[in-house]
Amino acid sequence: MDIGFIGLGNMGQSMAANLIGAGHRVTVYNRTAGKAEALVQRGATAARTVAEACRAEVVFTMLADDRAVEAVALGPDGIAASLPAGATHVSSSTISVALSERLAAAHAEAGQRYASAPVFGRPEAASAAKLFVIAACAPGVLQPLQPLFDAIGQRTFVVSEHPHTANLVKLSGNFLLASAIETISEAVALVSKAGVDRQQYVDILTSTLFAAPAYQTYGGLIARQEFEPAGFAASLGLKDVRLVLAAGEQLQVPLPVASLLRDRFLTLVATGGGHLDWSALATLAARDAGDSDHSA
Amino acid sequence: MDIGFIGLGNMGQSMAANLIGAGHRVTVYNRTAGKAEALVQRGATAARTVAEACRAEVVFTMLADDRAVEAVALGPDGIAASLPAGATHVSSSTISVALSERLAAAHAEAGQRYASAPVFGRPEAASAAKLFVIAACAPGVLQPLQPLFDAIGQRTFVVSEHPHTANLVKLSGNFLLASAIETISEAVALVSKAGVDRQQYVDILTSTLFAAPAYQTYGGLIARQEFEPAGFAASLGLKDVRLVLAAGEQLQVPLPVASLLRDRFLTLVATGGGHLDWSALATLAARDAGDSDHSA
Amino acid sequence: MDIGFIGLGNMGQSMAANLIGAGHRVTVYNRTAGKAEALVQRGATAARTVAEACRAEVVFTMLADDRAVEAVALGPDGIAASLPAGATHVSSSTISVALSERLAAAHAEAGQRYASAPVFGRPEAASAAKLFVIAACAPGVLQPLQPLFDAIGQRTFVVSEHPHTANLVKLSGNFLLASAIETISEAVALVSKAGVDRQQYVDILTSTLFAAPAYQTYGGLIARQEFEPAGFAASLGLKDVRLVLAAGEQLQVPLPVASLLRDRFLTLVATGGGHLDWSALATLAARDAGDSDHSA
Amino acid sequence: MDIGFIGLGNMGQSMAANLIGAGHRVTVYNRTAGKAEALVQRGATAARTVAEACRAEVVFTMLADDRAVEAVALGPDGIAASLPAGATHVSSSTISVALSERLAAAHAEAGQRYASAPVFGRPEAASAAKLFVIAACAPGVLQPLQPLFDAIGQRTFVVSEHPHTANLVKLSGNFLLASAIETISEAVALVSKAGVDRQQYVDILTSTLFAAPAYQTYGGLIARQEFEPAGFAASLGLKDVRLVLAAGEQLQVPLPVASLLRDRFLTLVATGGGHLDWSALATLAARDAGDSDHSA
Repeated sequence: MDIGFIGLGNMGQSMAANLIGAGHRVTVYNRTAGKAEALVQRGATAARTVAEACRAEVVFTMLADDRAVEAVALGPDGIAASLPAGATHVSSSTISVALSERLAAAHAEAGQRYASAPVFGRPEAASAAKLFVIAACAPGVLQPLQPLFDAIGQRTFVVSEHPHTANLVKLSGNFLLASAIETISEAVALVSKAGVDRQQYVDILTSTLFAAPAYQTYGGLIARQEFEPAGFAASLGLKDVRLVLAAGEQLQVPLPVASLLRDRFLTLVATGGGHLDWSALATLAARDAGDSDHSA
Repeated sequence: MDIGFIGLGNMGQSMAANLIGAGHRVTVYNRTAGKAEALVQRGATAARTVAEACRAEVVFTMLADDRAVEAVALGPDGIAASLPAGATHVSSSTISVALSERLAAAHAEAGQRYASAPVFGRPEAASAAKLFVIAACAPGVLQPLQPLFDAIGQRTFVVSEHPHTANLVKLSGNFLLASAIETISEAVALVSKAGVDRQQYVDILTSTLFAAPAYQTYGGLIARQEFEPAGFAASLGLKDVRLVLAAGEQLQVPLPVASLLRDRFLTLVATGGGHLDWSALATLAARDAGDSDHSA
Repeated sequence: MDIGFIGLGNMGQSMAANLIGAGHRVTVYNRTAGKAEALVQRGATAARTVAEACRAEVVFTMLADDRAVEAVALGPDGIAASLPAGATHVSSSTISVALSERLAAAHAEAGQRYASAPVFGRPEAASAAKLFVIAACAPGVLQPLQPLFDAIGQRTFVVSEHPHTANLVKLSGNFLLASAIETISEAVALVSKAGVDRQQYVDILTSTLFAAPAYQTYGGLIARQEFEPAGFAASLGLKDVRLVLAAGEQLQVPLPVASLLRDRFLTLVATGGGHLDWSALATLAARDAGDSDHSA
Repeated sequence: MDIGFIGLGNMGQSMAANLIGAGHRVTVYNRTAGKAEALVQRGATAARTVAEACRAEVVFTMLADDRAVEAVALGPDGIAASLPAGATHVSSSTISVALSERLAAAHAEAGQRYASAPVFGRPEAASAAKLFVIAACAPGVLQPLQPLFDAIGQRTFVVSEHPHTANLVKLSGNFLLASAIETISEAVALVSKAGVDRQQYVDILTSTLFAAPAYQTYGGLIARQEFEPAGFAASLGLKDVRLVLAAGEQLQVPLPVASLLRDRFLTLVATGGGHLDWSALATLAARDAGDSDHSA
């Protein structure tokens, strides 16, 4: 299939590479051109503009935030303006529910198809084609996409016919991750002040009730106080919590733990930690416990 | 070894049975006598008083709360008054850090030994000898206990030489469970108001980032709205959150998520849900979202 | 002076009337025309369009929310497009800091002047010319406005040369009011469950430490459970808390009590109370205490 | 009347002096003897023991906390053991609801009378006999006490026949004060980061909606960052919030703002600010906003 791929960060690079590996003709585009080179060597074509990447049956976007997606998809010479009628825009970025609704409307108006397909998984999983794809789109739109999702992930969950619902599910997942980070941080602050070894404590949790990837990954970072370089920056954590709260407000669903997380991330950012990994919330729990050793 | 076992609820029954199965001579005691029968048929001796159960090298207690342990251990004719010098009291109940400190002092004064060994695991794990034992005691006290812990659990974690630290770790574990319940509840309230199927949503979580026993157990209960009969009652959840907050106050460690949980459990109890499973926190998240269908 | 006045709700009516009373020539405009009649009888001229109301040295706006102000000020044929160069737009609405910044930029670009002058006080105070004016603008802009502020209020506080700062101060005042409402509500839920008479309790507070208008007004409403008709609707309370949180996020200032208030207002709105007075937060405190008598 | 007065801190000194001034025979007792001297010069008799101070028709206690009151009232040779049958213990200390209930029971058993009469007002008000007395006792107990309350305060509010209810009202008042401190702190952090002068801001609040003693006192301290010496220490603030939460738990009334305050006070204490005035909560709001200038 002819595929365009826009957004070649850590995640996008691997996803595009796996689409090439599955035998598709992939045209790649990134605002910073250098990122395309490795993929070109694997057989991709480099586009010089978004419009060039849109000469395809399917165009993926995997970008940092609402602003980037809005510019690429809805701006002049953007996807909505360039993609052929009947072709599909697959949005895999973590964006707001509201923007996803606007994308759906814009593509419908332009006679294009639109699917929302954010993913769960870190760069390692993207590289290994082990992502989990959270897909939402009309049934007829989904079918031709399934082989593409199979090329990048280990499993696809179709959660709704309404694309923005997949964005909601993705944001709720990031909310749950941030919640796990905060609660592990509080528990570690508590037991380590009583002399328990942080690493042993996290080992106990992740050998027993919390033997889950999320707790293993973030528990480990917190135990080792390994907040740089960021796998996912606190400033992005703040953004995602803001988006999940906005979705909650639109749906009229209060989310008290998300409110608490928002204040924590905001504190972290305001005190100079926006560039740290979002697991650096742990420095706040330690700081508030007067544990000057372990604070940032 | 000659072992006394006091407290024959769901958990205690299975633990005592596994000690018998490992070849020990076990004398059992429960305030309500009927509970001892099944164990007597397996070879246990029934004690008529706490003092009788204390004619042993090691006496376990597995009771509901501080009040029960205080009465049995520190009351007249209790363990501290009855246990031979040099014998060991192993406290496996989920009790406060403060009471554990008082037990340590009382047993030291009486020339007895004391170990704290609360467990992670539900009744099924106790029955299958698959508990996780969180142990804390002086090194010399631990060694002879290890075969007993091996008889009831799949693994022992020794977290400190100070017994009360094991209680802190256990309480922190319950705090993390309650936090997971609350955050799953909020996420489910959010996505289900957008039309996502609760069961599918929980399946997604527990197949991906949150493939952990805690999320599987409580996510399932929340998806199915299966809050009766309680595996662990909301009123006990409130008690454990209170104990973890008290420990945090003693150690001067603020625990904002625990504070939020306290208010949620208190709301659940005040509005008539104290007897429900603690996962019924989900009814509050649904209620506050105006989701009258799913509220208690 | 020739003055335009746009927005003739409860507050705007009285403010415009007091400007007429002070001898100014006032042209009034409201989207719903009927509202102008009473003012015309007092000597005002009715404008049929925003542009007509802008044939003035100063044009006031006193509108419900950002959307209304944006439409009137920045829309086609709006104030920025119509007001003569050198004339001043005085924005008295409770709007976001961000919109106030956009207004400042738009008026600067059009060669117009801009002052932000939100007010503290309820409709009775507006009618009695007893408002408090929170003003922010360049010094040269302020001077000719002072007599106008004197005509509508008892005192003017100039808080900054940057207009949007006055909006921030106004929003922070509404945050403090909402906080007082929530904390009175919690305290009343507590003591009334112990049998203390609500009205007597509020009398005690407002005769002693809290002898302030805010506590008298809202304490009284809460004691009498008098939530309809709304003096200020819960849905507007939610809006203002959202705006203060947005301002906090822009300035990187966490506001944990505001976060809590957001969840409370959202709960009130989601459960059908958006039209009630914002003091109906008290129904949530009562409900969560299981006090079915006093809940909405 | 023959009156005993136990507890001669800032508040107690002034209250005892005013009782002497009203013509009563007052026997005073303080654990640290020196405190009695000034009162002896005004005509008081110094007691060497609690029991001596109990040779009276009425004995007041005005002590720091539960522990002090428990020791003086319920200890060996304490009030319950020493006061003549029919005489009255008036407890004016800020103590827990639970202790007040125990005092009521102990005095009833000893054939004594008991009234709870905590006060609102700072040392200046005590000195000027301008306190507000929050009284609760059986009607027959109250009547002979009224002239005594008139001697120390400007007004008496009788809130219940159940003495502990007065303690609840007093604690709820301290909760409201702490809430005002926290919300002013957050608002000041917000507007001062936007360049508004703190003192001017507090002047605006206290000239308008919040023209109340509580806002004037604490707003002023926060604006001037005047946290030492403490008028009321943060560690006592933590204690009172703990007591109001305990009362809320007993009555099953969630108090989310009190929970938040508990974490804030605990943070302040854990980071070395327990000795500061409780208005030093403002340093946390400033610190979390990254405002290093204004943090402790």
